[in-house]
Amino acid sequence: MSKKKLGIGLIGTGFMGKAHAFAYRSALAAFPDIPTPELRMVADVNAEGAAKAAQQYGFASSTGNWRDIIANPDIDVVSITTPNTFHKEMTLAAIAAGKHVHCEKPLSPTLADSEEMVKAAEAKKVITQVGFNYIKNPMLKLAREMIAAGELGEITGFRGIHAEDYMHDPEGLYTWRLDPVGGPGVVADLGSHIICMARFLLGKITHVNADIETIVKSRPKAVGSKERVPVLVDDIARLMVRFEGGFGGTLEANWVKTGRKMQLAFEVHGSKGSLYFTQERLNELQFYKAGGDGRTAGFTTIEAGPQHPPYGGFIVAAGHQLGFNDLKTIEMAEFLRGIAHGKAEGPDFREAYEIQKVVEAALASSRQAASRVTI
Amino acid sequence: MSKKKLGIGLIGTGFMGKAHAFAYRSALAAFPDIPTPELRMVADVNAEGAAKAAQQYGFASSTGNWRDIIANPDIDVVSITTPNTFHKEMTLAAIAAGKHVHCEKPLSPTLADSEEMVKAAEAKKVITQVGFNYIKNPMLKLAREMIAAGELGEITGFRGIHAEDYMHDPEGLYTWRLDPVGGPGVVADLGSHIICMARFLLGKITHVNADIETIVKSRPKAVGSKERVPVLVDDIARLMVRFEGGFGGTLEANWVKTGRKMQLAFEVHGSKGSLYFTQERLNELQFYKAGGDGRTAGFTTIEAGPQHPPYGGFIVAAGHQLGFNDLKTIEMAEFLRGIAHGKAEGPDFREAYEIQKVVEAALASSRQAASRVTI
Amino acid sequence: MSKKKLGIGLIGTGFMGKAHAFAYRSALAAFPDIPTPELRMVADVNAEGAAKAAQQYGFASSTGNWRDIIANPDIDVVSITTPNTFHKEMTLAAIAAGKHVHCEKPLSPTLADSEEMVKAAEAKKVITQVGFNYIKNPMLKLAREMIAAGELGEITGFRGIHAEDYMHDPEGLYTWRLDPVGGPGVVADLGSHIICMARFLLGKITHVNADIETIVKSRPKAVGSKERVPVLVDDIARLMVRFEGGFGGTLEANWVKTGRKMQLAFEVHGSKGSLYFTQERLNELQFYKAGGDGRTAGFTTIEAGPQHPPYGGFIVAAGHQLGFNDLKTIEMAEFLRGIAHGKAEGPDFREAYEIQKVVEAALASSRQAASRVTI
Amino acid sequence: MSKKKLGIGLIGTGFMGKAHAFAYRSALAAFPDIPTPELRMVADVNAEGAAKAAQQYGFASSTGNWRDIIANPDIDVVSITTPNTFHKEMTLAAIAAGKHVHCEKPLSPTLADSEEMVKAAEAKKVITQVGFNYIKNPMLKLAREMIAAGELGEITGFRGIHAEDYMHDPEGLYTWRLDPVGGPGVVADLGSHIICMARFLLGKITHVNADIETIVKSRPKAVGSKERVPVLVDDIARLMVRFEGGFGGTLEANWVKTGRKMQLAFEVHGSKGSLYFTQERLNELQFYKAGGDGRTAGFTTIEAGPQHPPYGGFIVAAGHQLGFNDLKTIEMAEFLRGIAHGKAEGPDFREAYEIQKVVEAALASSRQAASRVTI
Repeated sequence: MSKKKLGIGLIGTGFMGKAHAFAYRSALAAFPDIPTPELRMVADVNAEGAAKAAQQYGFASSTGNWRDIIANPDIDVVSITTPNTFHKEMTLAAIAAGKHVHCEKPLSPTLADSEEMVKAAEAKKVITQVGFNYIKNPMLKLAREMIAAGELGEITGFRGIHAEDYMHDPEGLYTWRLDPVGGPGVVADLGSHIICMARFLLGKITHVNADIETIVKSRPKAVGSKERVPVLVDDIARLMVRFEGGFGGTLEANWVKTGRKMQLAFEVHGSKGSLYFTQERLNELQFYKAGGDGRTAGFTTIEAGPQHPPYGGFIVAAGHQLGFNDLKTIEMAEFLRGIAHGKAEGPDFREAYEIQKVVEAALASSRQAASRVTI
Repeated sequence: MSKKKLGIGLIGTGFMGKAHAFAYRSALAAFPDIPTPELRMVADVNAEGAAKAAQQYGFASSTGNWRDIIANPDIDVVSITTPNTFHKEMTLAAIAAGKHVHCEKPLSPTLADSEEMVKAAEAKKVITQVGFNYIKNPMLKLAREMIAAGELGEITGFRGIHAEDYMHDPEGLYTWRLDPVGGPGVVADLGSHIICMARFLLGKITHVNADIETIVKSRPKAVGSKERVPVLVDDIARLMVRFEGGFGGTLEANWVKTGRKMQLAFEVHGSKGSLYFTQERLNELQFYKAGGDGRTAGFTTIEAGPQHPPYGGFIVAAGHQLGFNDLKTIEMAEFLRGIAHGKAEGPDFREAYEIQKVVEAALASSRQAASRVTI
Repeated sequence: MSKKKLGIGLIGTGFMGKAHAFAYRSALAAFPDIPTPELRMVADVNAEGAAKAAQQYGFASSTGNWRDIIANPDIDVVSITTPNTFHKEMTLAAIAAGKHVHCEKPLSPTLADSEEMVKAAEAKKVITQVGFNYIKNPMLKLAREMIAAGELGEITGFRGIHAEDYMHDPEGLYTWRLDPVGGPGVVADLGSHIICMARFLLGKITHVNADIETIVKSRPKAVGSKERVPVLVDDIARLMVRFEGGFGGTLEANWVKTGRKMQLAFEVHGSKGSLYFTQERLNELQFYKAGGDGRTAGFTTIEAGPQHPPYGGFIVAAGHQLGFNDLKTIEMAEFLRGIAHGKAEGPDFREAYEIQKVVEAALASSRQAASRVTI
Repeated sequence: MSKKKLGIGLIGTGFMGKAHAFAYRSALAAFPDIPTPELRMVADVNAEGAAKAAQQYGFASSTGNWRDIIANPDIDVVSITTPNTFHKEMTLAAIAAGKHVHCEKPLSPTLADSEEMVKAAEAKKVITQVGFNYIKNPMLKLAREMIAAGELGEITGFRGIHAEDYMHDPEGLYTWRLDPVGGPGVVADLGSHIICMARFLLGKITHVNADIETIVKSRPKAVGSKERVPVLVDDIARLMVRFEGGFGGTLEANWVKTGRKMQLAFEVHGSKGSLYFTQERLNELQFYKAGGDGRTAGFTTIEAGPQHPPYGGFIVAAGHQLGFNDLKTIEMAEFLRGIAHGKAEGPDFREAYEIQKVVEAALASSRQAASRVTI
């Protein structure tokens, strides 16, 4: 029988740590069917920061040592929001302690690490989830349902991208994000989101042919410093893919696309219709349906409303709009519901591992570049 | 000296009641400088519904009698989210008990009632606020600052609208919202939002010339019933206004505009620039600046980011987007900060009263219709 | 029986003169059913400019005296594209000579002049047309048809505007356009377009309540001059109107709206649907249809194609887009077809006179301002 | 010395034939500096159709035999708008007769044919042009200038597509367009446009890695027929490319993208800025400039106006909009000006040949598919 309350421990208090806090605080109000999350302990390398976060986010206690969360028997669930070099160690410890684990993406710097984490979780039968929040959008759920129901007919192609611009300035400093110890670069950081979205909508990606490159070859070591550090991770990844369903598509991940703050976008088309979405207008989905009155045919802008679950858990009237933190709330609520039901609603560690396989295949393809024809 | 914690009582658990709950739960995480809101009691006419809401929203207790909140000495702040016919009684009781009051809009069905409420609050020196959440948007704050700083030059005109479509169907049932006891109709319900926004951006409205009409003259009493109830409140209000600054504009309030879910929009133009905004894309503000390189001039789509306070309290990265409930969180946080500082950040009861004066002037103008020229 | 060829005379070689030339040159290719326009003579006050225009636009002859066109028996049709202070004299001369007349808008500075021109044309039974080109757009024809066919249900309201910014700079020079001898200002210049469009879509306007104002009270006489000329014509006109069909709306004309180059836009809504259009995207019409599957409802962006006559006369494939000069071609082709059939397709002089009646009623209403309530 | 008049012969009277006719008729009015085009003869396989076209388009004579145009000494210029299987024969005949040739795209079904045509034209020193009309847009000229002037900084990537949907229906009939005798399919038909645009903006494409596929494997032979014809040409082409400048990009050509009528679009980004364009809104260019006031930064929508040559040749006021046929007019005017100056303004046959080299390289790459990694 499922517990009515779940003790929550949060590791990390940065961008994603705060997002988890918001989400746990709002989840029950939006989803009355889930177990009540009780905010028990928050950890940060900086104990003072952890204490401040506890007060601000409403956690009962705090610590400067994340292992206190692992050791705490009142904590059922651990949220890991630290940089991804720490994910494996923390995750394995939490799993070993029998805790359910939500870990931010990308799951780990390497595929081998991810595999180890999947195996540990499955062996221990804990519920896992990885922070692919964008697919939690009601508009994405609608898109997936429409595709599954055949409303687009036979799918004939996909065109996806996740581009932002936080690395676009060649004079931007070298940071830990660019350390290859943390993973291969944009293909894992942003690429994993669009790969996840593609799989969510359309199923398995079976083949990849990729071109991955580093645009800014070195960056200043510090403000005012003339010393530059060579950059060994990639800035842009372009993938041509094939899906299990027999159709193809392209994916792009790009963190040097000047001016773009959140271009996580896709177009998917089938014999009977098409969809278009961009996270820049996350409460809208564009739908074209073939075969009606040609005089008034066109792309329809669907606005999110309570007819698109779980929007109604947040707002009873259409057009009022969800925000980024609401998507995170849906994500955490589904995680908690998965724990209650003993079955992850996903994406779980295994799904994150499958996503990482695409990342690694893209890297392998790009290294060989054998299909590239010189003109 | 301000209290570090404030006990919260919530009356009403519907659309707005839930929005208040979300907001109180998130406020401190987004605004660490405010007093900590402690959710102490929730009231609903239905005691069972109140109990359920307490559990779901995290209130310590519940009641079927709103006067229990008034009587509770641990409650410092009362949120009133019931239909507006109840606002006056509840508000006056709360003020009499020395509580700070947040009341949803419109403040009351009549100007006289509003005036009474303003006087009571000011006499008792409690902090008040009224639920005009849309102006809490960082994009609106930016717009206001730009106007005040002269970035548009001399203001030359305004064009505002708040249109939705929840009354567009002539076969939609007669409901309490259409009972004139609750107020004059759309001019108060949606009109107050666009009047509030116009005042927030541009200052006092000094003259009104209005045309207000009822589109659906009667509605079915019940599903399947042939009996129709005459509708005595208005469906569309059109206002031509003049502002204190000497320029003019138009305002429209419309709840029969089929297809529109949240067209709360304005254009404001001056000798040096223009702004355009619609709540349909609440994380964007369009800005045109005259006088630059004509070759690349045009309207710029500004995307909300941490450079637009208080966006950064919610999300550290640009382009991720706030939602409706986040605006409500800003609103409640500012209310609590106002209590801490002993000064309302607004819109307070007096501002709501000023808004209602515009509503009443519009009704008076429309009744006389003396400027209307027959062609 | 109708003539197979029509001799064309053009008076004026500026912005509109050139547009007429393009249109006459393209009309037959797009509309094979119309009489062949033969470009016989072009007139300009500057004989040299006229000669150059003849060569450039393909007219057989030219003159510095417009009366040569009137006197020329081979000319059946006269296009008048001079400033509107000259319209009456030229038009009456052309009519007296039995020629069909196309005159640019506004037809004349005063209603009395327009009436005289209408009477002359009707007495002589010549075909007339006035340059309201924007309603010639296939998307406007579609909109009108949809409204007439009841696809929006009972019409419940209209919101129209024509705003540009060519007068927005307070330091812009005083020009002939601002001379009240030419008419009242923006309400006639741009206002006539949106009034025309409203009438085209929805029928007669029966009542007007207006607020019309001059924003820039004086302007420099010349570059570098300190002398300023007082401006006696208006810059912004705001109208609240009622239509014959019993519903209301607003119209705005504005030539100081900084940043807007062609905001000729309307929204019209009815019990079953809505349309939205802006000339800024003239090949699109937005349509909302109530009552379908709520999950996928929304505004549909209809793109112009050959299914929207007479688009197909220009381009056989959808989405390729018409431009401004194509609208003018449609206009002139319909004028020539009207001549062939002995019946104007409109808007003819009478329609222009009706439009001017609305302009004058607006001015009268604004002067009295009796419904304006001071707050 | 250049001739003042040029005799024009047109072969083909379909979609593009008509577009050429419009363009020749309007060119001089928009571009007074070019030689006067005189419409001398039009040819069509159907002599009656040719005669009708002559009357409608204003050609002095017509013929059912295209060789009459070649043989006519009064014809200086030949426009070839027939299906591309006929291009080579007609072109070589016209060149042999010393005529300047405009040929629609794609230039020929094979690279070898194109090479032969280039050599013939260059040997005979006639001026040539190929119908890549979309790059004639003033917004494209602006984009190219901005890139060349360094306004985007160092270019870091490109993302282009040309998608329409005229082949999306699997039950659409088999037509001559699908006959491989005419070329490889969409990669040549639409792909050549986006390749042309990429080269126009960014220079040579040096490497291609492509995935090209046929979606609809067979199509009905005739209406009502059960017989299906196998389709041997491609429906979607996806290319990853590298440019001479060292950066990369993707291109897609797709004629089964349901709902898209004219998605000819690109994004290009550099270290200091980005541009976005779609032919669906051909009078707009989106520009992001890095490094300004972050508070008001964003993509600016530039609207076409007379400050963007040669827009002003058509319309003197901004925002009025050019259409597809106007782009064709620019194209033909530049062709005629090229003849007058003895130097093609392009794209000439050589450029079309270079484009075709990219097409063939894409096909070769796709056949080998060696970089494709199976997951």
